[in-house]
Amino acid sequence: MPSADDIFDSGLLSPGTAGSDAVVSDAAVLAALVDVELAYLRTLVAAGIAPASAAVALEAVGVVSDAADVARRARATGNPVIPLIADLRNAVGGTDAAWIHRGATSQDILDTALMLIAHRARTESIASLDRSIDALTTLADAHRSTVAAARTLTQHSTPTTWGLRFATWLTALLDARDGLVAVVLPASLGGASGTLAALVELAGHERAASLPSALAAELGLAAPPTPWHVVRSPVTRLGDALVGVTDALGLIGANVATLSRTEIAEIAETGPAGHGASSTMPQKRNPAASVLLRSLSLRAPGLASTLHVAAAASVDERPDGAWHAEWPALRELLRMVVGGMATLDELTAGLTIDLDAVAANLAITGDGILAERTGLTGSAGVPATYTGLAEQFVDVAIARARS
Amino acid sequence: MPSADDIFDSGLLSPGTAGSDAVVSDAAVLAALVDVELAYLRTLVAAGIAPASAAVALEAVGVVSDAADVARRARATGNPVIPLIADLRNAVGGTDAAWIHRGATSQDILDTALMLIAHRARTESIASLDRSIDALTTLADAHRSTVAAARTLTQHSTPTTWGLRFATWLTALLDARDGLVAVVLPASLGGASGTLAALVELAGHERAASLPSALAAELGLAAPPTPWHVVRSPVTRLGDALVGVTDALGLIGANVATLSRTEIAEIAETGPAGHGASSTMPQKRNPAASVLLRSLSLRAPGLASTLHVAAAASVDERPDGAWHAEWPALRELLRMVVGGMATLDELTAGLTIDLDAVAANLAITGDGILAERTGLTGSAGVPATYTGLAEQFVDVAIARARS
Amino acid sequence: MPSADDIFDSGLLSPGTAGSDAVVSDAAVLAALVDVELAYLRTLVAAGIAPASAAVALEAVGVVSDAADVARRARATGNPVIPLIADLRNAVGGTDAAWIHRGATSQDILDTALMLIAHRARTESIASLDRSIDALTTLADAHRSTVAAARTLTQHSTPTTWGLRFATWLTALLDARDGLVAVVLPASLGGASGTLAALVELAGHERAASLPSALAAELGLAAPPTPWHVVRSPVTRLGDALVGVTDALGLIGANVATLSRTEIAEIAETGPAGHGASSTMPQKRNPAASVLLRSLSLRAPGLASTLHVAAAASVDERPDGAWHAEWPALRELLRMVVGGMATLDELTAGLTIDLDAVAANLAITGDGILAERTGLTGSAGVPATYTGLAEQFVDVAIARARS
Amino acid sequence: MPSADDIFDSGLLSPGTAGSDAVVSDAAVLAALVDVELAYLRTLVAAGIAPASAAVALEAVGVVSDAADVARRARATGNPVIPLIADLRNAVGGTDAAWIHRGATSQDILDTALMLIAHRARTESIASLDRSIDALTTLADAHRSTVAAARTLTQHSTPTTWGLRFATWLTALLDARDGLVAVVLPASLGGASGTLAALVELAGHERAASLPSALAAELGLAAPPTPWHVVRSPVTRLGDALVGVTDALGLIGANVATLSRTEIAEIAETGPAGHGASSTMPQKRNPAASVLLRSLSLRAPGLASTLHVAAAASVDERPDGAWHAEWPALRELLRMVVGGMATLDELTAGLTIDLDAVAANLAITGDGILAERTGLTGSAGVPATYTGLAEQFVDVAIARARS
Repeated sequence: MPSADDIFDSGLLSPGTAGSDAVVSDAAVLAALVDVELAYLRTLVAAGIAPASAAVALEAVGVVSDAADVARRARATGNPVIPLIADLRNAVGGTDAAWIHRGATSQDILDTALMLIAHRARTESIASLDRSIDALTTLADAHRSTVAAARTLTQHSTPTTWGLRFATWLTALLDARDGLVAVVLPASLGGASGTLAALVELAGHERAASLPSALAAELGLAAPPTPWHVVRSPVTRLGDALVGVTDALGLIGANVATLSRTEIAEIAETGPAGHGASSTMPQKRNPAASVLLRSLSLRAPGLASTLHVAAAASVDERPDGAWHAEWPALRELLRMVVGGMATLDELTAGLTIDLDAVAANLAITGDGILAERTGLTGSAGVPATYTGLAEQFVDVAIARARS
Repeated sequence: MPSADDIFDSGLLSPGTAGSDAVVSDAAVLAALVDVELAYLRTLVAAGIAPASAAVALEAVGVVSDAADVARRARATGNPVIPLIADLRNAVGGTDAAWIHRGATSQDILDTALMLIAHRARTESIASLDRSIDALTTLADAHRSTVAAARTLTQHSTPTTWGLRFATWLTALLDARDGLVAVVLPASLGGASGTLAALVELAGHERAASLPSALAAELGLAAPPTPWHVVRSPVTRLGDALVGVTDALGLIGANVATLSRTEIAEIAETGPAGHGASSTMPQKRNPAASVLLRSLSLRAPGLASTLHVAAAASVDERPDGAWHAEWPALRELLRMVVGGMATLDELTAGLTIDLDAVAANLAITGDGILAERTGLTGSAGVPATYTGLAEQFVDVAIARARS
Repeated sequence: MPSADDIFDSGLLSPGTAGSDAVVSDAAVLAALVDVELAYLRTLVAAGIAPASAAVALEAVGVVSDAADVARRARATGNPVIPLIADLRNAVGGTDAAWIHRGATSQDILDTALMLIAHRARTESIASLDRSIDALTTLADAHRSTVAAARTLTQHSTPTTWGLRFATWLTALLDARDGLVAVVLPASLGGASGTLAALVELAGHERAASLPSALAAELGLAAPPTPWHVVRSPVTRLGDALVGVTDALGLIGANVATLSRTEIAEIAETGPAGHGASSTMPQKRNPAASVLLRSLSLRAPGLASTLHVAAAASVDERPDGAWHAEWPALRELLRMVVGGMATLDELTAGLTIDLDAVAANLAITGDGILAERTGLTGSAGVPATYTGLAEQFVDVAIARARS
Repeated sequence: MPSADDIFDSGLLSPGTAGSDAVVSDAAVLAALVDVELAYLRTLVAAGIAPASAAVALEAVGVVSDAADVARRARATGNPVIPLIADLRNAVGGTDAAWIHRGATSQDILDTALMLIAHRARTESIASLDRSIDALTTLADAHRSTVAAARTLTQHSTPTTWGLRFATWLTALLDARDGLVAVVLPASLGGASGTLAALVELAGHERAASLPSALAAELGLAAPPTPWHVVRSPVTRLGDALVGVTDALGLIGANVATLSRTEIAEIAETGPAGHGASSTMPQKRNPAASVLLRSLSLRAPGLASTLHVAAAASVDERPDGAWHAEWPALRELLRMVVGGMATLDELTAGLTIDLDAVAANLAITGDGILAERTGLTGSAGVPATYTGLAEQFVDVAIARARS
């Protein structure tokens, strides 16, 4: 049972992700580390290197360590895998214990565990994302004829439709989804210096060469063509895709917040009683979900840049701090995506359009909103006749969402 | 008693700070939020606005909320203060309850609590920092005559001394210390829109005007000249000072790691048994503390940049997401400094110089290391005659450390 | 005469600074490098180390190099000082030539030149900044009674005044100004490895020790207590202060852009004919200056973070790339500040308030904007009776601006 | 003929790219802007919308504007396209002039021009990159049996080979190349508010709908499915791929710099006379190209993060500053890649291995370097028998490079 002292962060300062980020919590990372050690041991067993009893014993042991305790013991050596292995070996005992982690290096285990966590978080994120995509698809379709004032550089420009606006946000989400899905999440197995020398010693060249892909298959990850201890593109590409997602969250958050301003009020968040309440002003209904999404999007780029700084600073056969800098940045990005997607899901489920406000705003600029058209044809017409390909673009986005 | 599900982060991926960062944990933030509500209520009492019984009742209540629970309930409104107030009012009950938070806004409480946390973390950091300053002062003094090869752009240049090298790291720490000490940590009190209108309503202009400084005095913070809900220089300056500290941690980490390379080996980390051990290679003694310091320094700049991005995006009388983006970034920077300083303390307490390696390295370049001198005077001499003002610079740094 | 091929950047993609950034252009940096070599030589002459004829000859030579040519030749050695020295020595010729740069290292010259550039840019920026401060002071004073709807999280909250809003922006500028003024800009003089060994060889310990402060005095810079080749706080502090300025520019830009939205329209930029025009929509008047200020504020934090990343990666007696990464980041930050300040000056000179729009917006929320007051007193009153200490806070800001 | 005053940056502070970045200079951007206006006009002509004479006249005019002059005039409206159009229309004159830019918006032209610049820079970069890939392939092959000490966390770990080390760098480059090649570079055509309303007005829905892909085809860019004025994934993905390239440049730079340290000296840069020279120390041979590559890699992540911050802050139908923030960041990233690749090309062409140093270093740790093997088998053997799959991994990388 953890003590309160062992909790550093339980979400207090991260309401945008709170309650939906367990898949990437310390407990989840710890479990993934154990999953990877077990999968690795099974891989050794399957290859005839380790005795079957070792994997059976390790599986029976499960997670025996406390995360906070591991963290403190990790200070001496720099990473949490080393104390974790000690715990696992101690729990297993006997000759089986020696087979745990044999031939691997701590970076193999931690890199693979983070990819496994990413895999799990991605699956969960996309389920949530697909609900938001459905919601925006419905909104884009429903409002394809809702003519509204477009705004550029904050000023009314020409007419557009709310359908196209929703379709635009939808496109941003679809781009983010494509980016996330495209990321290859490889297992890592290189041994002490990226040569797999210990495994070759134990099992010969041929069998050793088969182990990275076997480990990957065991965990549902991609097979690594070669070790990537210092080639960090798997990490930076994942980070880039994750910040691509928060970019889309931020785009939607910023737009809903802007367009729900008291003076604009074309759109509003709705939610259970108390949603958007203020601590002092009873009349307020703040766009709370949008604000939280926007906050995530402001935070993510700095974290993703850390992954690139670290990638570029990788030296030797395994780096002296650059690797260690990746872990919290990558995990926090995963948290923002999986937790933020849940927030987006709530947001998109509750969006409402105020058609009167849309019409009233459109009327503010009067014929001015058709000034471009007047310049072309000499007459202004009505806004609904000057929305160009808005409807076609809605169709394109919806078709893509449904494909 | 928290359940394992309520722990997002207990340090597993942050060994560089694990075990030394409780002063800025969620528990500490939650306690600080309650401290600020209590201090604010006491301020109202002292000004004759609220009844004394209210403060007595609130003090008796203490921390009644669970951080993870507050976090989940914060999603509806965007910040944790609103559910926290509900808990406090519920626990106090009766007419006293209504005086809790009256006239303040949630941003006042959270901003003040983060400054209070920063104040506490700074105090703890500087105590630790001063031990490292002492250790480096001793090393600089002890090695003022230890002539060594200087290196520029990775290549031997001219002679220097290990004393000057330690003095240089010491100077970086002293600069960081000065920066941290100079940061002004103000309380925040502006009310709903930064006008203190509710307090003026309750207490009149004059008494209301005295409350921000009274609140600050109650908490040991600086008095804010005017509300700073959207003028975020207190936050960005704190962030800049914190990353200034991690820069110094990184400098020392990078240099110890470099100069302890197997081929250079002029310096080594020492520590308890197991320090610097590898999971597979018994001969290794990794510079684990340096590696962890370096990892912190790679992570901090992205977080500090987030604070600036947020500051520049502040709009209206209180911002729509920019403020919310600050909290985890600022807290993580505080964590790195207070936790990293403890790591630095361990590092500096255990540094050892290998005089033979120093001499052997110096000999590698032979007379080449005196080539600049030869170009000036026609003769090379010996390295110890060509260390310029190294000793004077050591004296300057030591004098500053002792002042 | 430079050819078009030698221009990489003449401002085409930086309209927010174009026409006001010459003080930090390549020509200015090149001139500053020559200024520093000359000041250094004069310092040697004044100390009786070099012959007076050398300084006379160097002064007569002036800037003989072409920046693009120096840049290309700098590739071989990594920095532009080395080819520049070759040009200067070649132009001076004879025995005087050998005294140019003697005892210094290229980092001394370039670091000092960048500080000199920063000094010049700061002087120019502050002159411009003070005009904006005057303009905002006048606006804050003029609109101290202009009651307006305050907005928090994008929604009307309680009343405020435009005077307080201007005072808030003014406070942000004053904080930025204080930060910029407080930065210490030291000369750099450490010689090849930061020991000044060559100068001690040429002039003895005592005279050598006096040279860094003499060089600084010659250039109007601060005296460096010790060499700072790898202690980069002078650079990071400058960068932090610069991004502190762009934060304030961004705050004003974001607020003017938001509050000039077609539906809000409380404020507008004015300027010469064509200001804010669109390429296709004749009715538009875009807040062009605000948009450019905002763009600067989005760009600066990433550059400032680079300076910290570089500071933390400094190794040895002079670094292997970290130093080189600083130059363009620091120069671009200086550009943003000096150029952006000119844009701010134009903006603040042309701001106009639409009092009718202010009143109409305030009326939107009706009594709701006084709901907090009603909750306290049971009656709403009128907005002008619920602006709290707005006027006092205006006075505080104005008094600070005038002090 | 430009005056010296019109040059802001001619490379003086960017030696890592100097002389190889003309493809993304202001002159190149200006030419691309004109190319896009011409291609757009040709597209209108081909669709039967505009008269053929207009395109003929515009082509005859070419680039008539001066970049610095355009930049200054861009301040009034916020972007350089508006003054450029004025210049082009003025030069063409008559009724043809009105067809220039008709139906497009300035963001269409500038976004398309930057994608065109990116396309050209990519082509040039990849040509250079492929030379480096060839060089590293040759080195990996040549040194597949050169056994060396592997290092992890700066300490000798187990044996590896220089062939594998080169293959690792090669893999990083191949990953970067894949990333760069995979980026889709679309044309942009949305008109004033992303609806193409003006084009529909001029040409009807069907013909208007065909124009974005026609414009793209004219320029060799990808067809945009829908307008992307506020869906900035084309820009962020490009930025991510570019920083992926500088990560690889940094990896190689950091490793060559480290492994060419005086005490390690396994590898060295070679180049023309003067390469790596110091301003004061005749014995030095600095790894100048590595240092410059490393400096680029430290700078790029902050710029890429700016693109994400901007993407997430995009509001309305076209943004109020976020878009404007992209231009210099994106262009500088392109510069780093195209210019840095030329530096890499020089570096890889001149790398030399010192086999004696490799052997001497390997011997330092003695049997310790085989301690892992001894732990497994009870005997140490010789290093060459403990390189695991190093050779197979070399083969994988080489096969990939040649495919």
